Amino acid sequence: MTEKRRLISRNDAKTPLFVGVDLGGTNIKVGVVDDLGRALSWVSVSTEVEKGPDHSTQRMGDAVATAIAEAGLKPADIARVGLGSPGPMDIQQGILLKPVNLKNEGQNGWKGFPIRDKLAEICGMPVAFNNDANAAAYGEYWVGSGREYDSMVLFTLGTGIGCGIIVDDKLIAGAHSHGAECGHIILDHGDDARMCGCGKTGHLEAYASATAVIRYTQQLLDAGRETSLSKRIADGAELTPKLVAEEAENGDPLSLEIVMETAKYMGVGIVTVMHTIDPECVMLGGAMTFGGAGSDLGRRFLDRIKEEVAARAFPALAEKTIIDFATLGADAGFIGAAGIARLEHSAR
Amino acid sequence: MTEKRRLISRNDAKTPLFVGVDLGGTNIKVGVVDDLGRALSWVSVSTEVEKGPDHSTQRMGDAVATAIAEAGLKPADIARVGLGSPGPMDIQQGILLKPVNLKNEGQNGWKGFPIRDKLAEICGMPVAFNNDANAAAYGEYWVGSGREYDSMVLFTLGTGIGCGIIVDDKLIAGAHSHGAECGHIILDHGDDARMCGCGKTGHLEAYASATAVIRYTQQLLDAGRETSLSKRIADGAELTPKLVAEEAENGDPLSLEIVMETAKYMGVGIVTVMHTIDPECVMLGGAMTFGGAGSDLGRRFLDRIKEEVAARAFPALAEKTIIDFATLGADAGFIGAAGIARLEHSAR
Repeated sequence: MTEKRRLISRNDAKTPLFVGVDLGGTNIKVGVVDDLGRALSWVSVSTEVEKGPDHSTQRMGDAVATAIAEAGLKPADIARVGLGSPGPMDIQQGILLKPVNLKNEGQNGWKGFPIRDKLAEICGMPVAFNNDANAAAYGEYWVGSGREYDSMVLFTLGTGIGCGIIVDDKLIAGAHSHGAECGHIILDHGDDARMCGCGKTGHLEAYASATAVIRYTQQLLDAGRETSLSKRIADGAELTPKLVAEEAENGDPLSLEIVMETAKYMGVGIVTVMHTIDPECVMLGGAMTFGGAGSDLGRRFLDRIKEEVAARAFPALAEKTIIDFATLGADAGFIGAAGIARLEHSAR
Repeated sequence: MTEKRRLISRNDAKTPLFVGVDLGGTNIKVGVVDDLGRALSWVSVSTEVEKGPDHSTQRMGDAVATAIAEAGLKPADIARVGLGSPGPMDIQQGILLKPVNLKNEGQNGWKGFPIRDKLAEICGMPVAFNNDANAAAYGEYWVGSGREYDSMVLFTLGTGIGCGIIVDDKLIAGAHSHGAECGHIILDHGDDARMCGCGKTGHLEAYASATAVIRYTQQLLDAGRETSLSKRIADGAELTPKLVAEEAENGDPLSLEIVMETAKYMGVGIVTVMHTIDPECVMLGGAMTFGGAGSDLGRRFLDRIKEEVAARAFPALAEKTIIDFATLGADAGFIGAAGIARLEHSAR
């Protein structure tokens, strides 16, 4: 059992407090987090990304102040702020490069924005900076699904596939700030491999993200496959993984086939990561887990992933590696960002 | 520039010395290595693996004594021994599990042998234990091709594909001693994916190891493809990657095609590792590099790998990640094993 929740200071009256900021393309989630990873407050505000990085960074700073006040604290009570942001970025320099979900060029463009130092200036305290997927992984590792393990890979399944890797309390952030971009490991090298959102082919994200599920389902619909999805869509429902999950739960064979196919691809990707990192556990978070631990379909999705892993991985690893759902939900990002701030604070 | 070569002690007269042992299925290579990674002596003896693990471990111990004497030293001058061994193993426990290149079961079987403590008993000093591929990678990282970088992935191309990953002076050894088994990352998930030596399908090793090259070449020969290899084999030459390399250099188009195909697969595998670890450099060692840096064919092999990486990786990573040949050759194993002993010694 790991000691990762050990207090930085044993003097309870003096344990440091942190603020975590999870910057998204739509919302900013901010919370005060204590030395044991407990959220003391949290607030969510819209990013208003179209108004540019200076505006959104001011909104982050305001949300930090609000979260501190909500917790009944003063800025001086906070040791450090942690910020998880969409990449790509230069983590060392604290700069956004060409963030994929934020407007890049021209007026109000985010490209090249020195986001870490700008936020530090507004907050009046040091800011620890990292990738949003890495921050979520660190949150799960610190106090969520990975809290009992010394190494973990978290896949965050959504529009794309985010990933974070932690080995012995250390994030694999990468020599060029591109560590744990496992949404882009190659599943298929063939000429007919699927096109990924990043512009290259055969990447995991092109097979097991929400985008991939929607595209694949549409292909099956276009091919005239019989499915109750057709009626739902004709009735005005939007084609989403959630709709596919609903119809799978209603007994539609094609919808279930799509869920199981997605699980198969995740299994293939997980084997590659197991044979590279050999983590103690692999956790699955994000909105695209077909109901997750709380649903029968989610458990079938997970079982199918494990079945594929058993078929393709070293038997000893297939047997011993924990594969399960993440537990912190949408809080993983800000809690993990606070945890990264805590790591930097304790290493100072 | 890293400080990994920094002396453990600044007092030159007192810097510790180490012995590295590289256990192979055919030979044992042992050398005394100083605190800067310089080999002061080395010896090679046959493993005599068929006589069982006790016998071979005694041979290792004798070779350690010989190497120490060859360097003009006494056992008391050595701080620690490092041992790199074929896996799979339990690194923490110092035990071999079912080593693939050594006889496992029955009399003189190696399965379950407590090799670390047995060698320590014979040598009368502590032994640091790790996977042979990890040891070779650490050697290259410490004083070889990776010496200027803070993170590295080494692929050792031979009968199989070994791999070692180092991030900030730390080996990714894995939660279950299976870290960096990147010969077994998945390149192809399809039903017609190639069978790997490990019994699973679609793994890198099934596409880019010497075994894979020989099998693929034989298939092309069986299919009646025109090639100067046919005459060489009819004249009594053995089908090996070296033969393919010779004929490629002699202008045989099919042989060159085989070399370039192998490079393509290595490129695919390297992209997956780049998108997982994002190392500063990826190095290629082992006997199966088609001549390596010293030959025109080796350089074409490397260029083709880089071309594939450029086609499939994030542009920023394809541009910045160093991909090159390893430089320590067959010395990487024992030097790296000594380096791992040095790591343990300095952490004591």
